[in-house]
Amino acid sequence: MNNQGSSTCAWPHPGRNGNAHSSDRVYAVDRWLVHMFLHALGDPALQVCLWDGKEIPLAGSRPGLGMVIHDRAALWRLLTNPLLHFGDDYSAGRIEIEGELVSFLETVYRAMAGSPKFRRVSDPSAYRRNQPHLNSIAGSRQNIHHHYDIGNDFYQLWLDANMQYTCAYFPDPAASLEEAQVAKMDLVCRKLRLQPGQTVVEAGCGWGALARHMAKRYGVTVRAYNISHEQIVHARQRSKAEGLEGQVEYIEDDYRTIKGYYDVFVSVGMLEHVGPDHYQELGAVIDRCLKEQGTGLIHTIGQNSATPMSPWFLQRIFPGSYPPTIREMMALFEPSEFTVLDVENLRLHYAKTCEHWLERFEQNLNRVREMFDERFIRAWRLYLSGCVANFSIGSLQLFQVVFSRSTNNQVPWTRDHLMVSTGKS
Amino acid sequence: MNNQGSSTCAWPHPGRNGNAHSSDRVYAVDRWLVHMFLHALGDPALQVCLWDGKEIPLAGSRPGLGMVIHDRAALWRLLTNPLLHFGDDYSAGRIEIEGELVSFLETVYRAMAGSPKFRRVSDPSAYRRNQPHLNSIAGSRQNIHHHYDIGNDFYQLWLDANMQYTCAYFPDPAASLEEAQVAKMDLVCRKLRLQPGQTVVEAGCGWGALARHMAKRYGVTVRAYNISHEQIVHARQRSKAEGLEGQVEYIEDDYRTIKGYYDVFVSVGMLEHVGPDHYQELGAVIDRCLKEQGTGLIHTIGQNSATPMSPWFLQRIFPGSYPPTIREMMALFEPSEFTVLDVENLRLHYAKTCEHWLERFEQNLNRVREMFDERFIRAWRLYLSGCVANFSIGSLQLFQVVFSRSTNNQVPWTRDHLMVSTGKS
Repeated sequence: MNNQGSSTCAWPHPGRNGNAHSSDRVYAVDRWLVHMFLHALGDPALQVCLWDGKEIPLAGSRPGLGMVIHDRAALWRLLTNPLLHFGDDYSAGRIEIEGELVSFLETVYRAMAGSPKFRRVSDPSAYRRNQPHLNSIAGSRQNIHHHYDIGNDFYQLWLDANMQYTCAYFPDPAASLEEAQVAKMDLVCRKLRLQPGQTVVEAGCGWGALARHMAKRYGVTVRAYNISHEQIVHARQRSKAEGLEGQVEYIEDDYRTIKGYYDVFVSVGMLEHVGPDHYQELGAVIDRCLKEQGTGLIHTIGQNSATPMSPWFLQRIFPGSYPPTIREMMALFEPSEFTVLDVENLRLHYAKTCEHWLERFEQNLNRVREMFDERFIRAWRLYLSGCVANFSIGSLQLFQVVFSRSTNNQVPWTRDHLMVSTGKS
Repeated sequence: MNNQGSSTCAWPHPGRNGNAHSSDRVYAVDRWLVHMFLHALGDPALQVCLWDGKEIPLAGSRPGLGMVIHDRAALWRLLTNPLLHFGDDYSAGRIEIEGELVSFLETVYRAMAGSPKFRRVSDPSAYRRNQPHLNSIAGSRQNIHHHYDIGNDFYQLWLDANMQYTCAYFPDPAASLEEAQVAKMDLVCRKLRLQPGQTVVEAGCGWGALARHMAKRYGVTVRAYNISHEQIVHARQRSKAEGLEGQVEYIEDDYRTIKGYYDVFVSVGMLEHVGPDHYQELGAVIDRCLKEQGTGLIHTIGQNSATPMSPWFLQRIFPGSYPPTIREMMALFEPSEFTVLDVENLRLHYAKTCEHWLERFEQNLNRVREMFDERFIRAWRLYLSGCVANFSIGSLQLFQVVFSRSTNNQVPWTRDHLMVSTGKS
């Protein structure tokens, strides 16, 4: 590639709706539109090829990393709402990526950090931006149904055997996903210092793996809440098959309806779907249900400063979701004077977890194709690749926060209890 | 004690300015004033005895724990500004405590948590309340001089041999203060993963122990800032005596003047004196001086919700001080997109540290008396006892926060590095 004028793409560019004989004047407009689009994203070092095979000359572009825009309408759309339309047009196959999608996205996301339009400046209303609907009880059901109820068979193709759709913990980067998901559950259990006979309430239990693990390995009784019907059905089946029905109860209901009084409150991967408007409400639920000497743990995707999610992500993948900053999370703890005992950031573990998911997803494409169309597959490839990229470049974090009541002096004296695995997989 | 009417105190009540023959009507007013005062504090279960030996009947009071008010004027003052005048009148000997002072204060502080006047409700301007002057460069000098420049000889009487005036880390609760202060330095060094040859900048170095320890035990070069003249003089003497002059440089200047570019930023016990108005300024200093792959650690007293310090504490002991909430601390990190990697709460370690200080202070009273008058001694007894009580009942916290730049992927993979002590005392 050179920067002296138009050239032709070095990579395949089938051409779809474009006109290969466009005039120089039209080409100048296209070139200008590409520049405008990239400039809005902070000028990422990418190659861009048009529908007619022409490559747009771009200063500093990185050979082998770029995009083909297959028609002029897609290019125009990129200017009006770049993130929404990039996602949609990539999903529809009107945009193609040259090079590795994760690297492409990392390059774009890094550039965006320097763009006035997307610079990460903390915005107290970030969580409301681009949201189709927020998380009332009814809104939450709709939002959760959109993502989690699309078929357990699909998730089984690329999650671990225990169906955990949250950040794993790799004691060693080379650990398998299966090992790392068990290690994550044990890490959570050690942080909570579970003792046989204790009672646990879990808010947002997914397919129920943690509740079963706690019951089986640590001898506790768990009541686990979730509003995804498909997940609850699966969780109950597994619990029955494993003979844990007396010890684990799955309740298809919202966290706001939690009843009872427990030694432990735990929530792994739900806070992302709660929304900062409802953190105080969740904090009041915890205050109501946690015993005086109880311990709580919240595991959530987070970010360093309050910035909105992409509209594509919110409309197509995870409506109602928002990864909080630590500042925003404090609304959970401050009104009830909970004490934060421990925060651990597992960001790189989530990058690795998503890499495993993406790899398994790609390995099982034939089976995914039996369930969904190509647009779905491309959307999910973009979503999973975007997760790898966001965790890898540090625009998303993973916080595990342990807390207790401020008056509880039975808190751990040191971190020694974290270091010995008491559960066996 | 009974609650049926006036009785006489079971403990000594020398009587000073009161009238032992006060009429019943006057006594009824005094009784009412005591009730008002205790009610403002949330009705702590205390005995109260007046100057004439009369004990005020109080429902639920705890035998052996209470106060003698030695004159009527002191009782009136307690109503106008209870915390300020309790401190001043206790210091002046016009109020005496029956029972252990720490238990007395714990009882009062616990009750205050339920009082409408003192209930811990987060207040964004809490840090400005009761402050004689905040922390401009000149204000900071004045504030720091007030507390830290009262004589190294005095601090040597009750701090550890290395003169560390911050929370120690007791690997075991039975460890000595000397051991625990060394363990604290090693814990900080492990969290920072110090490597020989690295450069460290320390903001607020006290008498310089951590800087010397890092240089001696971990082979790093340290530039340490402090605006307390007395502390800097002591730190330089020690560094010279230990032959560390080439490795440790003590600079008598404000953190805002820090220059250079370092592998590590560390600050142990300074943030309490910075004030939330200046956190962004401090964050910008860290952003300016920390290398791309650098690591930072801030160790600070904190609290669960933003509540003001007592006016007595701010006027008599630590002007300009304020223990931040985690939410307030985020102003340090968010504007520069720093990533919080690890937060540990060492609250109970600080309760124990203060117990050691108080015990040593009492053991060395004769030598303290050669330096200061009785009012000073009583004020410091109250201050140190108040610290024990506040950490012990959970109204103060101790946060150690480790952070890096958001783009740094060389962060620790697990917490394994925290578990092996690499420094020897």
